Amino acid sequence: MNIIEIIEDKKVGKELSREQLEFWIEGLMNGEIADYQTSALLMAIVLKGMTDQEAVWLTNAMANSGDKLDLSAYGDLSADKHSSGGVGDSTTFIVLPTVVACGLVGAKMSGRGLGHTGGTLDKLEAIEGLSVSMSPEEFYNQVNKIGIAVAGQTGQICPADKKLYALRDVTATVDSVALIASSIMSKKLAGGAKNIVLDVKCGRGAFMKNQEDAVKLAKLMVAIGKASGRNISALVTDMNVPLSNYVGNSLEVYGALKVLKNESRGNLYEVSMALAERLLESAGIDNAKERAEEAVSSGRACRIFESMIAEQGGDIEYLKNPEKLLNTRYVSEILAESDGFVNDIDAMKIAEVVRDMGGGRIKIEDTVDPWVGVEMTVNVGDKVAKGDTVAKIYYNHIGHENLKEKVQSAVAIGSQKPKQNKLILEIIK
Amino acid sequence: MNIIEIIEDKKVGKELSREQLEFWIEGLMNGEIADYQTSALLMAIVLKGMTDQEAVWLTNAMANSGDKLDLSAYGDLSADKHSSGGVGDSTTFIVLPTVVACGLVGAKMSGRGLGHTGGTLDKLEAIEGLSVSMSPEEFYNQVNKIGIAVAGQTGQICPADKKLYALRDVTATVDSVALIASSIMSKKLAGGAKNIVLDVKCGRGAFMKNQEDAVKLAKLMVAIGKASGRNISALVTDMNVPLSNYVGNSLEVYGALKVLKNESRGNLYEVSMALAERLLESAGIDNAKERAEEAVSSGRACRIFESMIAEQGGDIEYLKNPEKLLNTRYVSEILAESDGFVNDIDAMKIAEVVRDMGGGRIKIEDTVDPWVGVEMTVNVGDKVAKGDTVAKIYYNHIGHENLKEKVQSAVAIGSQKPKQNKLILEIIK
Repeated sequence: MNIIEIIEDKKVGKELSREQLEFWIEGLMNGEIADYQTSALLMAIVLKGMTDQEAVWLTNAMANSGDKLDLSAYGDLSADKHSSGGVGDSTTFIVLPTVVACGLVGAKMSGRGLGHTGGTLDKLEAIEGLSVSMSPEEFYNQVNKIGIAVAGQTGQICPADKKLYALRDVTATVDSVALIASSIMSKKLAGGAKNIVLDVKCGRGAFMKNQEDAVKLAKLMVAIGKASGRNISALVTDMNVPLSNYVGNSLEVYGALKVLKNESRGNLYEVSMALAERLLESAGIDNAKERAEEAVSSGRACRIFESMIAEQGGDIEYLKNPEKLLNTRYVSEILAESDGFVNDIDAMKIAEVVRDMGGGRIKIEDTVDPWVGVEMTVNVGDKVAKGDTVAKIYYNHIGHENLKEKVQSAVAIGSQKPKQNKLILEIIK
Repeated sequence: MNIIEIIEDKKVGKELSREQLEFWIEGLMNGEIADYQTSALLMAIVLKGMTDQEAVWLTNAMANSGDKLDLSAYGDLSADKHSSGGVGDSTTFIVLPTVVACGLVGAKMSGRGLGHTGGTLDKLEAIEGLSVSMSPEEFYNQVNKIGIAVAGQTGQICPADKKLYALRDVTATVDSVALIASSIMSKKLAGGAKNIVLDVKCGRGAFMKNQEDAVKLAKLMVAIGKASGRNISALVTDMNVPLSNYVGNSLEVYGALKVLKNESRGNLYEVSMALAERLLESAGIDNAKERAEEAVSSGRACRIFESMIAEQGGDIEYLKNPEKLLNTRYVSEILAESDGFVNDIDAMKIAEVVRDMGGGRIKIEDTVDPWVGVEMTVNVGDKVAKGDTVAKIYYNHIGHENLKEKVQSAVAIGSQKPKQNKLILEIIK
């Protein structure tokens, strides 16, 4: 077997064999295959596609390229979730505590934010003292002790994915459904959970702009998970409007806490419950929806989230007094310019404002300001009068108040009450 | 401008601009663009194609990446030829002396053989003492003195082509008409000749297996040459059967000498005259065909070839007594196994036998045995009786006589006299 023949096969559109894909990933890791050969193959994959079977084999080869978490001690109870990245998406902080409150074990390795979406780790780190880096041993110990842990990648998880992703990023080979699915799923498989739920975002605030592509990606990821013996399902959810009223790292923790403390409902709650329901159903738990809702309304999910924060060294004062999470030097209000109904809130514009205030990364090395953000004080469909506050920006640098204009343009007010868009577009089991 | 956007544009099938192509080649040479980015772009080019205009721009960017020969002192008289690589193809040794005998100036930079076809330099080096490496100054001086020189690349000609070719070779991105045309033509443009004739081979003994592809390549190369102000034309010629009765480095010089000495005609003579005619016509010389034929029949072309060999240090005893070129330890005959007509001679099989005896290279570092080869003592259409000699193999290692079987299988004898195939398939001006 040699890599030139493998590239040649893909170039003419052939299905690569399991052995060919394993040979590639092995050679990528031990340096026997040069990066310029891998990038040529990546481009051929982007342009010629991959069968589902190839994606399954590739995902497994990548998952096997490094360490894997062993959650077999928890039998069918371990649970993990993944979101393809949205705006104001803090469902992890609600979903995992909820399913843990219902008897599952929540073990999730998370990433940093990049581009216009935030990352779970950046959000958690807004809580003073909280550490997201643990050794595999510390991770297992915490899961054993309290049933839940959310941490950065422990050990060498999927080094092949890391290497491939870095190459794809600089060779314009990111946009392949098979490669995106393999990248996400290799980390999920290595993460070891038996039950997995995926939230594939779709719309202007997501990487997948249209529903067809999002459904294709979701279906492929579910197929990959099933082929590896996981209980897996996916939601395809709307990401045209921010999922939560709070966008920005610390603000998103704040928004999740309001849900966990039963002070708020809305889209964030709805999607979180749907995701928790999927996980509980995967694990064979009856009345999943009711159980999930009860876990939140009873406050049990909130207490589990608190125990996790405390266990990871976070200052639980932040949970008792969430206003500590709203902590910027300046806050400035955006007012409605006319009477009417909120017709639309553009998730992408809001995300860009947060990023431009320092809340997001353009390059992986960038540091983020966890405190900046945007709060929407209205929702789509709300009636407003001229002069009402529709949003606030939280910022730390004079000059950033100029971004108010962009927030203003993101919140569209019209004379007609808009139709409510569907939030959960598709469920793939 | 950045390379990721350029790759992205080609990936979605856009025409790249002149500036984008120049940016790429410049970055390739100064190291600012990584090889893995170039190889992804190459794959996108292979799969999405290039317009003729892009090929023109790319060729010029490559030609401008290094030194160029300046033949402007010869006005419209400088001449160069190129063959896409065939079996028994020693036309250079006939065409250039012929056009020089008719008043043109022959200045050709040549290459080494690779794969199943021989290279002009390897063939010339069969003549003892002959040197093919000269400085640009020595090259100019020789052209000035005797009007003809055939040498290896002088100076740093088209380093971008060298780099691209090396990458294409290991990333399965060789087979793009635009890339092949740009590679060949960048060297021709840097070679500086005003008049250029191309011989695009087509058939089982050529890189282009079918006529459609060969014509496409020929047309594109002619378009590139014209866009750069050259007088250029191309022949597409059959390469199913060896062009000459002699295949192998020293044997091909021998075969060419037989033509130059008026001891043989046949396909080698016919194609050589057609190529010479094209060059003379390009340069505006009337009665080109008659002049070319007269240059050979009068012996003037032969004397010019001799002067070149002498000037480059070659032992001209080889020209006076060409049998010195048939110089292997062993010669073995292949006999007809039945009565009948020679129906076919498989050029690829003959080439493989020569390569397997050490006469060709698989890798660029391999050394060649210039003396081994195959002589066909019959031509397609000849009547033979069982036991007649149809071919001879010239070899230096015991064991290689086993290759006789393959030669035998290459020479097909049937009861019917075969139709004569067309030799010159198309002329593109």
